[in-house]
Amino acid sequence: MTPLNVQLLLTGNELMTGDVTDTNSIVIAQALKEIGVEVYRKVTIGDDESLLKNEIISMSKSADVLIINGGLGPTVDDLTAHALALASNSKLTLNLDAEKHLQRWSIEKGAELSKANLKQALLPESAVIIPNDIGSAVGFSLTLNKCKIHCTPGVPRELILMLTNSLIPEIRALLPESPCYKVKRFQVYGLGESNLQMLIDNNFPDWPSSLDLGFRAKSPFIELKLTTRTSAGIDVLPIWEDKIQRLLGAHILAEIKDNEFSMPEHVLNLLSDRNLKITTAESCTGGLIASLMTSIANASLNFEAGFVTYSNQMKSELINVNSKTLEQYGAVSKEVVEEMALGALKKSNANIAIAVSGIAGPSGGSPDKPVGSVWIAWGSESNLQSAYFCIKGNRQYFQKAVAYRSLDLVRRFLLNISEEPFYTHKLNKS
Amino acid sequence: MTPLNVQLLLTGNELMTGDVTDTNSIVIAQALKEIGVEVYRKVTIGDDESLLKNEIISMSKSADVLIINGGLGPTVDDLTAHALALASNSKLTLNLDAEKHLQRWSIEKGAELSKANLKQALLPESAVIIPNDIGSAVGFSLTLNKCKIHCTPGVPRELILMLTNSLIPEIRALLPESPCYKVKRFQVYGLGESNLQMLIDNNFPDWPSSLDLGFRAKSPFIELKLTTRTSAGIDVLPIWEDKIQRLLGAHILAEIKDNEFSMPEHVLNLLSDRNLKITTAESCTGGLIASLMTSIANASLNFEAGFVTYSNQMKSELINVNSKTLEQYGAVSKEVVEEMALGALKKSNANIAIAVSGIAGPSGGSPDKPVGSVWIAWGSESNLQSAYFCIKGNRQYFQKAVAYRSLDLVRRFLLNISEEPFYTHKLNKS
Repeated sequence: MTPLNVQLLLTGNELMTGDVTDTNSIVIAQALKEIGVEVYRKVTIGDDESLLKNEIISMSKSADVLIINGGLGPTVDDLTAHALALASNSKLTLNLDAEKHLQRWSIEKGAELSKANLKQALLPESAVIIPNDIGSAVGFSLTLNKCKIHCTPGVPRELILMLTNSLIPEIRALLPESPCYKVKRFQVYGLGESNLQMLIDNNFPDWPSSLDLGFRAKSPFIELKLTTRTSAGIDVLPIWEDKIQRLLGAHILAEIKDNEFSMPEHVLNLLSDRNLKITTAESCTGGLIASLMTSIANASLNFEAGFVTYSNQMKSELINVNSKTLEQYGAVSKEVVEEMALGALKKSNANIAIAVSGIAGPSGGSPDKPVGSVWIAWGSESNLQSAYFCIKGNRQYFQKAVAYRSLDLVRRFLLNISEEPFYTHKLNKS
Repeated sequence: MTPLNVQLLLTGNELMTGDVTDTNSIVIAQALKEIGVEVYRKVTIGDDESLLKNEIISMSKSADVLIINGGLGPTVDDLTAHALALASNSKLTLNLDAEKHLQRWSIEKGAELSKANLKQALLPESAVIIPNDIGSAVGFSLTLNKCKIHCTPGVPRELILMLTNSLIPEIRALLPESPCYKVKRFQVYGLGESNLQMLIDNNFPDWPSSLDLGFRAKSPFIELKLTTRTSAGIDVLPIWEDKIQRLLGAHILAEIKDNEFSMPEHVLNLLSDRNLKITTAESCTGGLIASLMTSIANASLNFEAGFVTYSNQMKSELINVNSKTLEQYGAVSKEVVEEMALGALKKSNANIAIAVSGIAGPSGGSPDKPVGSVWIAWGSESNLQSAYFCIKGNRQYFQKAVAYRSLDLVRRFLLNISEEPFYTHKLNKS
C-alpha cells in the first residue's frame, strides 16, 4: 500500500520575513499524525498570486491531499481563493453557503457585512465550503488533478476547530480500514513528558511492543496515548491501561473521549456537585486563578469573589492578614498564605479558598527564598492545607504553573485523595 | 531590477511530524531581512535522498541562491551532501579542508576522529567549505544551474555563526549598490484588519503603488506595515507615513522598532511616568485585567490590589456599591460601574481605577442587555468616565476584548487624548 501523500502549502508574507514562527503546520502535522499520516512535503510562500497559482498546480500533481493554510482573510493580501480559481481554470463566484455564513457571522457580531468581508464569499466555482464556527473565513475544498485541495484559515483556533470537526475525519476516511487500530487517551497533570517516560520505563521494563506509547504536551496537561494497530495489541490494551491508571493515580484527570475539560472546569464541576463556593486570595498570580475560573460559563454559581492583594498593606486591609505575621514570617510564608485563605473565606462567605504568595521574578528573590518560591494554601476553614514549591521558569510560566498547581491541589482536596502527587517531593520546606 | 530570488530548503523528519518547531528558517529570514532580502519560497521535506535530490534540482532552476539547512550531521539520516552530489551529477570525495577542520575539531574535543564523523568530510567534488568555528559539520557551497547553493548545519548556534560570518556578507555582495528597501511598522489597537483596510481605502483613494501596505494580526493589535522597494517609494514614504498617523491618531500606540510593548506594559509605563497607582474592580472579566497587569515584571510599583466582585452581594460588601443602585439600575449599568470604580479607589488607595460589569454569556442576556453588553468605568475620583459597549464573540473572546478595551481607555485617559476612538461609535447607550 502506498501511503497517502499529504502536502502542505503555507502562505503569508509574515512567514517569509521571519516575523512569525509557523506553528500552524505543527498543529496540522500533529493532527495528521494521530490518524497515522505523516506530512510528505511542505512549501511556504509569500502573498503573491502567480506564485501561489503555480505552486498549487505543481503540488496538486504529486499530492493526494493538499492542505493550504492562510490567505482567506478579507484584505487585499488574502489571495488563496483567487489563486485557486486561476490554478483550476475556473471563475470566482459568490458562494451562497459562504455568503450565508458571513451574514450569520456579522449578525452575531452586531455589525454590517462590509464589502471587504463579502470578498470572503467569492470562491472558485466548484468549491465546497468547510464550516468555520468561530470566524469569518470559511474554509473550502475542491479537487484538482485528482488531488483533494482544502483551504484553511490562518487563525490558529479556527484552523484547529476545522481540523477536528471536518478535515481530519475526511482524511481519515481516505485511509484503508484497520480493524486493529485503537487509541486510548488520558489527560495527565503534574508530570512532564520526560518524567512520565522515565516513570513508565522504570516501572514497566516489560512494556509490550504491540502498544505504542505516545505523549503530547497540551499545556498544562500531557496527553498520554496508547495506540495499537495489531490484534495482539488489542488483546493486551486493557491490561496495560489498568497498569498505567494505577501507576499514575490522580495524576490522570480523565480518559479523553468527546469532552475534554480544562483544569478550572474540573474544579468547578466538583464544586458544583458538592454545592460549594470557592474564593481566591492571590499575590504572585495577580488574578490569574480567578480569571481561569471565571473564563468558564456559569462560574458565578460557585465563585462570587476573589482578591488580588499584591502589596503587604492590601493583604492586611482587604483580607485581614496580621501585620505582625507579615513582619515575622515575610509575605512568602506558610503563615501568611494560611491567614490570606482564612481572611478571604471570611470576607467572601465561600467554603473553599486558594491563597498564593510567591516570588514571580525576575527580581525579588533572596538566597533563602529564591525567585520561583511560592507558598500555596488551600482547603476549608476547618481543614486548611499548605505547601511550599519552587517553580523555575520565566514570570509568565511561573504564574501559570502556580495557578494550575493550586487548582490541582483543590481538585485533589475535593476528591478526598490522600495519595501524594509526584510533584510534592519538595513539600513542606518551612 | 529583479530582486534576488533566495529560497530555503529545510530537511529533517522531525520537521514533518510536528514534533519540532522550525526556528532555523526564522533565523535565516531575519538575517536576510537585515540586508533587505526577503525569502521567496521555502520547502520542507523529510530525510529522503531522492526527494532531496529532486527538490534541489527543481529549486536550483528558479532560485539565484538556495540555502539548504540540515542533514549535515554524522548519522545515516544526514543525506544532504549525498543528495547534492546526485543532483549535480558529481561524486562525493574526501574534501581536504573539511578533513582538516574535523581533525582540528576532534583534537580540541580531546577525542579520536570517528569514522562517522569522517563521513562529514565527504563532499561533492566542486564544493567549497564554509567554516564552522564551533561544531563538527562544515557548511559547503557549490553552483548548480547558475544557482549558488549553500548547505548549512541544523544546530541553531552553528547556523547563526555561519550566517553572520560567511553567508550574509556573501549574499550582500550579490545585491545592487543602493537597496531601496525600507519598512515602517506600527502597532495599532482598536480596529480590525478589514475596518483598517476600508478606512484607508476610503480616505486614500490615491494610495501610491510604490508603497506596499500590509497588515498582520498580533492579537490584540494589528501590525500595520509600509514597505517600499523603489526610490519613488523612499521619496513618498514620509508623506504617507504622516497621513496614516493623522488618520489613525491614538489608535497607533507606537512605531515598532526594537521594543514592542504589550498593552499592559504601555499602561504601566504611563502610570510609572506619572507616579500613579491603579486598581481594578472586575465583574465579567473575573480578574483578567489584574492578571494582565501583574504578568508584567515590577507591576507591583503601580498596582497594589484588585477586586473580583462577581456577585452583587460582593460588589456591595467589598467595594461599597449601594444595594439600591444595584436594584434600580442592575449590575450592568453606568451607575454600578462608576460606584465600583469609586469603591475600589477608596479601598485600595489607588489614583486610577478600571471597573467593568457585563454579560459574558453564553446565558444571562436579555433583550435590553444582550450577551456582550458591558459597562466600563475608568479614570480618577475627580474625573471618572464610563462607556457602554456591546462586544460579540464567545465568552473568552468577550473577556479578552473587554480587558484590552479597558486598558486602552485608561491609556488614552493617561495620555489626555480627547479624540474619539473609532470603536466608540456605539458610545453612551443608557
